[in-house]
Amino acid sequence: MKEIGAAMNLIRRGAEELLIEAELVEKLKSGRPLRVKAGFDPTAPDLHLGHTVLINKLRHFQELGHHVMFLIGDSTGMIGDPSGKNATRPPLSREQVLANAETYREQVFKILDPDKTEIYFNSAWMNEMDAAGMIRLAAQQTVARMLERDDFAKRYAGGQPISIHEFLYPLCQGYDSVVMKADIELGGTDQRFNLLMGRELQKHYGQPPQCVLMMPLLEGLDGVNKMSKSLGNYIGIAEHPKEIFGKTMSISDNLMWRYFDLLSFLGSDEIAALKAEVETGRNPRDVKVMLAQEFVARFHGQKAAADALADFEVRFRKNEIPDDIPEVRVAVGRGGMPVFKVIQEAGLVGTTSEALRMIEQGAVKLDGDRVEDRARMLLAGNRVVLQVGKRKFTAVVLE
Amino acid sequence: MKEIGAAMNLIRRGAEELLIEAELVEKLKSGRPLRVKAGFDPTAPDLHLGHTVLINKLRHFQELGHHVMFLIGDSTGMIGDPSGKNATRPPLSREQVLANAETYREQVFKILDPDKTEIYFNSAWMNEMDAAGMIRLAAQQTVARMLERDDFAKRYAGGQPISIHEFLYPLCQGYDSVVMKADIELGGTDQRFNLLMGRELQKHYGQPPQCVLMMPLLEGLDGVNKMSKSLGNYIGIAEHPKEIFGKTMSISDNLMWRYFDLLSFLGSDEIAALKAEVETGRNPRDVKVMLAQEFVARFHGQKAAADALADFEVRFRKNEIPDDIPEVRVAVGRGGMPVFKVIQEAGLVGTTSEALRMIEQGAVKLDGDRVEDRARMLLAGNRVVLQVGKRKFTAVVLE
Repeated sequence: MKEIGAAMNLIRRGAEELLIEAELVEKLKSGRPLRVKAGFDPTAPDLHLGHTVLINKLRHFQELGHHVMFLIGDSTGMIGDPSGKNATRPPLSREQVLANAETYREQVFKILDPDKTEIYFNSAWMNEMDAAGMIRLAAQQTVARMLERDDFAKRYAGGQPISIHEFLYPLCQGYDSVVMKADIELGGTDQRFNLLMGRELQKHYGQPPQCVLMMPLLEGLDGVNKMSKSLGNYIGIAEHPKEIFGKTMSISDNLMWRYFDLLSFLGSDEIAALKAEVETGRNPRDVKVMLAQEFVARFHGQKAAADALADFEVRFRKNEIPDDIPEVRVAVGRGGMPVFKVIQEAGLVGTTSEALRMIEQGAVKLDGDRVEDRARMLLAGNRVVLQVGKRKFTAVVLE
Repeated sequence: MKEIGAAMNLIRRGAEELLIEAELVEKLKSGRPLRVKAGFDPTAPDLHLGHTVLINKLRHFQELGHHVMFLIGDSTGMIGDPSGKNATRPPLSREQVLANAETYREQVFKILDPDKTEIYFNSAWMNEMDAAGMIRLAAQQTVARMLERDDFAKRYAGGQPISIHEFLYPLCQGYDSVVMKADIELGGTDQRFNLLMGRELQKHYGQPPQCVLMMPLLEGLDGVNKMSKSLGNYIGIAEHPKEIFGKTMSISDNLMWRYFDLLSFLGSDEIAALKAEVETGRNPRDVKVMLAQEFVARFHGQKAAADALADFEVRFRKNEIPDDIPEVRVAVGRGGMPVFKVIQEAGLVGTTSEALRMIEQGAVKLDGDRVEDRARMLLAGNRVVLQVGKRKFTAVVLE
């Protein structure tokens, strides 16, 4: 029983909700490897760390000796958007699906053990189903139950159209669990309804219902919104090592701990120890560097991680602005003042021609960024740090 | 144009609603034979006159030279009730469907011209459809549109479950029209929603939408409720000629005209002439006899019609109760009085022993029915006609 306790702790780590815990404990007690299902889009994967929350949890199950079933939901992908309303969802060809699956493989096997992962395509059974089979499947659920799903309820109440085939997709997803005889399915909290559909259909088909483990949606770099490509607050796992490293270093200290919990492969004990160190004075930046290195190493290898760290340190030192720099006030007037004149007024150069030459040479930085346009206007009401050459810094309050 | 006007008159006769009239006129103008669709249950047909309202209308189209497509919806019949809730709808086998189709043929070809009728089974195309095809079909309609259907709306509002596959059936029915390239579909007024679904789907599939001709639901013998087997107010087309004749004679004069309009093959002019005759004094019973004869002739032939008429006339004369019979009042007391005593009290026999002997001989009738049980109690509060022998009648008010 102690082993099961430890397994449950690992399974629960970072998870938002587990249904039904007692059932999962019973399944674990059986001692057999559990069939762990997670479904993924058949579209070209371009995974970011948000996606890896789920994949990491699959890895936990692999570490515990269970059987991971990585399902690519290609059946509906090959249908595309049958209402024709969504031009961004053209039907995928068999070849595209296989190519995308290959890309998935490359990306997820940086996290999962290929030997313990089975890749499924639901077209294998959905292509065998005829219209009568679809009708029989549809008979397993009611319209009212389907309209309980949050987004359906809102759209129905708001008078926005719901195509009838949209009611069939959750049923297909649930039916996948029946065919795959899933013991447990993992998904985001936004998938709650569909995950439970698997439970219900398995009961209809006389199977023990799958447990459902819901993982939270990862916050993006801003620490507020869900990580997503369209919001630009993401770290892509295929991004350049420098980008991964730098973006990780940009997150807040609070968010860093969240990422440790959901994304690091360190044990919970190790993470707790790091927290304790920071609480007693260790610079959180050092710990953030560890996380950034872990991410780069995971997706690009140890060498890339070391290089990214070295690069970061050089750049960091280069761009570091000393704490004790002089501050001056410059009256720029209502229309503002061009930057070449401001550095002269601030005493960083002696003459206008020196100012222009230094800018020409790329030796002038504004808040760490090289000034390219000598006529760039600086406006009253701001405080900027101006740097000329390697060592001359001045904070300028523009009035 | 005059011909089209006449055709439209025949088409409109007895119909409840035609959509869209202008479209139908256009189609008729084309001069080609129209593809006229009507769908029927694949279950064992046991047709009554209510069903023949539609079949008669198909006959009108045949008379006008159009192509009648008699569709047996066997595809869903072979699925049965997939929710398993309705045990009275077990899945039909291919053999049952064919046997039922044969029975249909026998029955409807008493009305339709076999040479101008094509029998379709929608399993021919539905069995070819896969799950993806069903999903694509389902994408053609919205949940909100489906919930506009009267019975769905009521059940949804009333918290009664609607299985999702029930949303698929109207789509399948509509899709039949697409495959069959129907120019017009006939159905009962209760099929309005499903008939219109055919129009909508044909538009989706780039076809000119079918016109829709809705026939009223025929009132049963009571003149109030829809004719139905379960209500017992029907005339089955396979019933014995005597039954068909007798039941027809039992309807009210008002209902008789309704039946003439919807069920008789007489022309509208001929019916109008009969009406005029009745209005100017002809006994409506004579006209009803014509209708009864027409029904029997249609389903059992001219000979059977002649026999049924002769039999009816014999029985009618036998059972006829004269209009001007004496009425007496008999005090039967709280517990009632046996019939042999009542005929004595009413003066129809002289003695108790004569009363008993007449009953023994089968010579006593109560409201036209022979009295078998001499101890049958008659209760206060009723008025009955008692007859002893051929000629002695008395109306008895029991007090």
